[in-house]
Amino acid sequence: MKTGISISEKSWRSVITLCAVISALYIPARIVLPIGDRYLFTFLGWVISLIFTLDFFINVFSKNKIDIETVNKPAAKLLWYAVDLLSAIPFGAFGNNIFYMVRLLKLARVVQFMHEWKHHQIKFSDYLSFSFFFFWFVIISHWLALGWLAQTGTNNSVNPFEAYVTAIYWVIQTLTTVGYGDISPVTSAQKIYTMVVMLFGAGFYGYIIGNVASLLSQQDPAKAHYSKNIERLKAFVKYRKLPVDLRNKINDYYTYVWKRRLGFDESSFLSSLPQALKIETALFLKKDILDKIPIFQKAPNNFKQEVALNFHSIVVSPGDLICREGELGKEMYFIIQGELEVVSDDGKKVFAVLREGNFFGEISLFKNSPRNASVRAVTYSELYILEKKNFEQVLSRFPSIAEQLKTVAEERNEVFK
Amino acid sequence: MKTGISISEKSWRSVITLCAVISALYIPARIVLPIGDRYLFTFLGWVISLIFTLDFFINVFSKNKIDIETVNKPAAKLLWYAVDLLSAIPFGAFGNNIFYMVRLLKLARVVQFMHEWKHHQIKFSDYLSFSFFFFWFVIISHWLALGWLAQTGTNNSVNPFEAYVTAIYWVIQTLTTVGYGDISPVTSAQKIYTMVVMLFGAGFYGYIIGNVASLLSQQDPAKAHYSKNIERLKAFVKYRKLPVDLRNKINDYYTYVWKRRLGFDESSFLSSLPQALKIETALFLKKDILDKIPIFQKAPNNFKQEVALNFHSIVVSPGDLICREGELGKEMYFIIQGELEVVSDDGKKVFAVLREGNFFGEISLFKNSPRNASVRAVTYSELYILEKKNFEQVLSRFPSIAEQLKTVAEERNEVFK
Amino acid sequence: MKTGISISEKSWRSVITLCAVISALYIPARIVLPIGDRYLFTFLGWVISLIFTLDFFINVFSKNKIDIETVNKPAAKLLWYAVDLLSAIPFGAFGNNIFYMVRLLKLARVVQFMHEWKHHQIKFSDYLSFSFFFFWFVIISHWLALGWLAQTGTNNSVNPFEAYVTAIYWVIQTLTTVGYGDISPVTSAQKIYTMVVMLFGAGFYGYIIGNVASLLSQQDPAKAHYSKNIERLKAFVKYRKLPVDLRNKINDYYTYVWKRRLGFDESSFLSSLPQALKIETALFLKKDILDKIPIFQKAPNNFKQEVALNFHSIVVSPGDLICREGELGKEMYFIIQGELEVVSDDGKKVFAVLREGNFFGEISLFKNSPRNASVRAVTYSELYILEKKNFEQVLSRFPSIAEQLKTVAEERNEVFK
Amino acid sequence: MKTGISISEKSWRSVITLCAVISALYIPARIVLPIGDRYLFTFLGWVISLIFTLDFFINVFSKNKIDIETVNKPAAKLLWYAVDLLSAIPFGAFGNNIFYMVRLLKLARVVQFMHEWKHHQIKFSDYLSFSFFFFWFVIISHWLALGWLAQTGTNNSVNPFEAYVTAIYWVIQTLTTVGYGDISPVTSAQKIYTMVVMLFGAGFYGYIIGNVASLLSQQDPAKAHYSKNIERLKAFVKYRKLPVDLRNKINDYYTYVWKRRLGFDESSFLSSLPQALKIETALFLKKDILDKIPIFQKAPNNFKQEVALNFHSIVVSPGDLICREGELGKEMYFIIQGELEVVSDDGKKVFAVLREGNFFGEISLFKNSPRNASVRAVTYSELYILEKKNFEQVLSRFPSIAEQLKTVAEERNEVFK
Repeated sequence: MKTGISISEKSWRSVITLCAVISALYIPARIVLPIGDRYLFTFLGWVISLIFTLDFFINVFSKNKIDIETVNKPAAKLLWYAVDLLSAIPFGAFGNNIFYMVRLLKLARVVQFMHEWKHHQIKFSDYLSFSFFFFWFVIISHWLALGWLAQTGTNNSVNPFEAYVTAIYWVIQTLTTVGYGDISPVTSAQKIYTMVVMLFGAGFYGYIIGNVASLLSQQDPAKAHYSKNIERLKAFVKYRKLPVDLRNKINDYYTYVWKRRLGFDESSFLSSLPQALKIETALFLKKDILDKIPIFQKAPNNFKQEVALNFHSIVVSPGDLICREGELGKEMYFIIQGELEVVSDDGKKVFAVLREGNFFGEISLFKNSPRNASVRAVTYSELYILEKKNFEQVLSRFPSIAEQLKTVAEERNEVFK
Repeated sequence: MKTGISISEKSWRSVITLCAVISALYIPARIVLPIGDRYLFTFLGWVISLIFTLDFFINVFSKNKIDIETVNKPAAKLLWYAVDLLSAIPFGAFGNNIFYMVRLLKLARVVQFMHEWKHHQIKFSDYLSFSFFFFWFVIISHWLALGWLAQTGTNNSVNPFEAYVTAIYWVIQTLTTVGYGDISPVTSAQKIYTMVVMLFGAGFYGYIIGNVASLLSQQDPAKAHYSKNIERLKAFVKYRKLPVDLRNKINDYYTYVWKRRLGFDESSFLSSLPQALKIETALFLKKDILDKIPIFQKAPNNFKQEVALNFHSIVVSPGDLICREGELGKEMYFIIQGELEVVSDDGKKVFAVLREGNFFGEISLFKNSPRNASVRAVTYSELYILEKKNFEQVLSRFPSIAEQLKTVAEERNEVFK
Repeated sequence: MKTGISISEKSWRSVITLCAVISALYIPARIVLPIGDRYLFTFLGWVISLIFTLDFFINVFSKNKIDIETVNKPAAKLLWYAVDLLSAIPFGAFGNNIFYMVRLLKLARVVQFMHEWKHHQIKFSDYLSFSFFFFWFVIISHWLALGWLAQTGTNNSVNPFEAYVTAIYWVIQTLTTVGYGDISPVTSAQKIYTMVVMLFGAGFYGYIIGNVASLLSQQDPAKAHYSKNIERLKAFVKYRKLPVDLRNKINDYYTYVWKRRLGFDESSFLSSLPQALKIETALFLKKDILDKIPIFQKAPNNFKQEVALNFHSIVVSPGDLICREGELGKEMYFIIQGELEVVSDDGKKVFAVLREGNFFGEISLFKNSPRNASVRAVTYSELYILEKKNFEQVLSRFPSIAEQLKTVAEERNEVFK
Repeated sequence: MKTGISISEKSWRSVITLCAVISALYIPARIVLPIGDRYLFTFLGWVISLIFTLDFFINVFSKNKIDIETVNKPAAKLLWYAVDLLSAIPFGAFGNNIFYMVRLLKLARVVQFMHEWKHHQIKFSDYLSFSFFFFWFVIISHWLALGWLAQTGTNNSVNPFEAYVTAIYWVIQTLTTVGYGDISPVTSAQKIYTMVVMLFGAGFYGYIIGNVASLLSQQDPAKAHYSKNIERLKAFVKYRKLPVDLRNKINDYYTYVWKRRLGFDESSFLSSLPQALKIETALFLKKDILDKIPIFQKAPNNFKQEVALNFHSIVVSPGDLICREGELGKEMYFIIQGELEVVSDDGKKVFAVLREGNFFGEISLFKNSPRNASVRAVTYSELYILEKKNFEQVLSRFPSIAEQLKTVAEERNEVFK
């Protein structure tokens, strides 16, 4: 499933791409620059012809190489074969430079490779887009520089390298719209060529800027959530004149939530997953807590999974009363992080301190009894809540366990009294 | 309904546009460049006068040509008639170039054509916007170049073509902000003219870049959904330290959903359609499956349609338990794609393998009996679900069929036992 | 409530703004350019002093002129008085140009006017932002040009006007990053000054482009809705391979909805309004239809209003069955636009054609009787629906009318049979 | 919790940053410019060595200085120690300029400081991003200018300061793409260097523009809400041809809501807060009103809190009937702002005027009696609503108070009759 492209396939594509790039850079350069028929390039030309021929046969005889979307259109298939075949012909050997440029058709394959790569690696598709953009930018700049040299001619007395550097320097200063003007067109043909390069530069620049702007506007969801909260707070403070003290508290709370990446809660993340993954993730996140609760310890595993799925997390701030003595309890709580205290009804006596891993209110899952103490948050804390109605829904699917659990819970309750 | 513009109407509009463009390019050029009164252009001038006169009469006597929004405003109507009439007068024949430019008023009609075209072809409106932008960019650059020539004068000794190329080259290098400076204003009037061109160029550039940025930020909804999922996963992994293995599984799942374009489900798409289209689409998508189910084969067509509308699709990942032995079933399932297996309660024995086109759980639509086996996904699979409550709603509208179907289903059930 | 700024107040602000602008342009120019003490400007200087003095006293003695947000901060008030007072002093008369520039402080008032204007005219705030931006761009370019002249000196032999045009031309070519280079800095001080202008130009350009991009990404809600629909259709077609015919139908439907601006339905618009406006709008939209229905004609006005509020509109496409013979009806329908036909159960016989202003299914509001015919859409049509449950809710508030209406309806029903 | 960075820590970081910046500016300059070994800089070099040595020891021996994310990776820790140590070595004393540049490694610490600063001050992160961007822009421009001087050589006869100004001026004109061309590369090496600077400038420009565009597209939520409303109104008016009068009323209403920052209601703001903050905020906003209501005056404090939490605000426009004589009331109202009147059933007689702080309909909280008068809004008004069902929910948690309140309310009701 993953990428569908094997390592050997990837290597072969790299070789093809390299050959196509060398051809794209060298063949047009040979027409314009007086670099002659160096032996190295003649040799390379033959090697590339060989490799492209091989690639042609591989493409014809192997089925899985053709893109799925194309495979059913015989015309497209034939066109690709033609491209592969034409680019394999060693026109260079016949000394005809113009025909030799037919080999550049192979760049269509590079486009196809890039397209597939981006499709398989959507996670990095922004970076790949940038890289591919830079790749084509280099190739096209090279061609534009050669075009410029073809227009102006390379003074045979100077070094061809210097002539080329001057040409590419002219291309870059035009594309980036810097335009020093130390090199400028003289004839009408040169002026028309320059106009084309300048208009191409305008589009190129627009693309860079558009991409940067689009990347800058992306935010991770927790930060976006935080920004929205802060914006709302600002507007609210402006109109309702909240006192500075209260404002700071709210600001602190939002910052805490943001730093702990709590902008999205677990439930919404889990709900985007299919069942098996949901259970695996929920169990990973909550199994430490579940194993600590005596009444669940003997329950079967699939029952525990179902229970874990029904947890959802909340954040409480210092001073929050999580439950109140005398009220009817409808949920139990597990402390993930932070510190809470069990207090008397008036909040003055502290009976106990609860920390990470502790839980409370479990009787409420089985009985409609009022809470027998209040619990108050000391620090910012995260809790898991298990609501009675969700718990009962789980129990209803496991009727055999329901009775058993109730007995355990009631026994514990007796002991606690 | 479609476009409201017939082929003949379109052809006529093309002719008018062509004539207006020729006039827009030629008439101002005649003032500045020493191109004289070539016979071709004099002849063309008369032809265009004729065509515009014809167009004037067509517009006056035909009703449907005027845009609906305009038709009720007599003032607007008269203004359009004036434009049509004035642009038809052959001022060129009187040798007065300034008055001849009155003909350029006809470009207002071209603007109107473009406006209507975009309105009728909103699907391609981005491309049309770009094309129209390029069209006006060419015309305005031409005018700006002629303006520059009017300021600097064309040295009579040189070729007027060369003078024009130099002028348009100056315009493009200024609009694209390249600004070589090989041609620069000397007199104060030229400097003021240059400032106008430069400021126009700033706006032009802003428009290009803004458009590119706006296009780049558009995404198809499935990809946007995928990106959001991946962003959320990244943030979640960062804070909760999910193990690599689990992370990869979730990543795989999101990628699968994205590749299959499942980011939006069918139901939301169908719900945006009116009833007749909804039924047609739903039937197209689901009729293969419906025809395979024995209990529905004899049901009338409109009943099947209603049933098809109540399907909704889900995706399950390898290992998901779709239904569990002993639980009460509340829906039946149809496999669109993928492989599932019927397993024993402990998941160790495999009784059967289900594939594309199979279905299971149909008894649950009629009876409140517990599932008699578990079904587990082997690969990523897509299923259609038909929920009991929705099915019963359909049945309630077709009371005569309800009884009959129940009999069939129970018979089948007997057989299966 | 509206703007809080009277016509006379607006005129006075215009005068103040004009005076401030003249001062902002003239006073710095006097320092750099050899324009001497023209009588006109000396006279104007005195008039402006007078007007600013008057404005100072108006601001001190009238209360409502100070911005609400400022009025409670005495320090801010005093600062504004200081600005008003200082800018009124005729330093120009003392021949000291540097001190004379104190008058430019009055531009702070112009900033304040602009700020309030945008606040009161938020609907046009984009256009105002652009205008204000252009206003400041002109003033700042003027200052930058004078700064350049101060650096380079104006060759006394040339016309000061020409020197100024050259300077402003240099500023514009630098700000728009065209940079011909025909005028360039020579001394280090000039180079440093040029760098400041270039960096300012970078920000200025960014602002223009950013604004254009931001404006281009705004769409009216109906079009945004349409684009989303089309995007979704495209993605759906790609994956599910909908037949071309069906695809075109869906495309047509979306286009119809878009052209009629039905992307948002009335209900959501009405729900954003407070009750009185909601009733007024609903009545305006629906009273023609309500008055046509016999059973409502005698009902009191406030009852009709309540009924009108419970209408909601739907769109049906050709072929849609709006109601089916034999089904239980739960709503009545009013035709706003389009054509429908009453057909037999098998859809072959057409009993009647219904058009704009007709209604059907009214019996369903009072009785649980099955529909006695099917109704099918012939063209794209818009209907208002009144659901039984909503209608009964209205009736429950007007118990006296309820009985009476039922009688009328049943009588009509008898007649129809 | 707040920032985790103490004042002394902040001061020390400022010192480190200052030393790193001085080194970053001075050390590369010493290589290129003939500024020799000035005593000041030699002395400063030794001081910086000392400070960096001290910082190295502080980092090694104090635990809390290392970033939390890094602390568990010993490799990263060692790398940081290496950076601290290397940058502390006084290579400058050995006269080797190239090795001396090792000190610039300390800039990595500055990057780290900035990263943490932004993390702690997310509220100002946009401004910080801009500042940091400008900071690096200055440093990199300095380096690029020195690189240019290294390429071209500083003519020994001229002032090194002038040479430097010319170089930085060249960098800025290239980065901002102004490109006068008065200074341009001659040799191939210079041309290649120039290309790098130009491409860097393209990215730099894209970043500025992207940032500006992204900032411009941000709106406070109330304004975004208003814009959406206005857009919807515009589209609605266009299609449905609302009369101008009605249109203006709706426009006024939206403007009122916007000016009062009512685009988001209190409830959604409060619901984003944890309980303790929610109660504190709700009490702050509503306690004035609660204290005025006789039936609540004797209730205990925590009961009042719960009641306050169930208030939600609405806006009514002139002419809205808030409640109608004879209808069953299900909520009570408190006037926050505006004017309402108690009227007869036909709306003609006015019995009383209600203003800020008044309340009505409190009987409905206890009894199912019909309203005994109608209430109509005179101006735009804001009200708090307390719904019966919410109130009863609160009462159910305080059963002892419920009975007592009912008695009070009924007594009052008797009195009012």
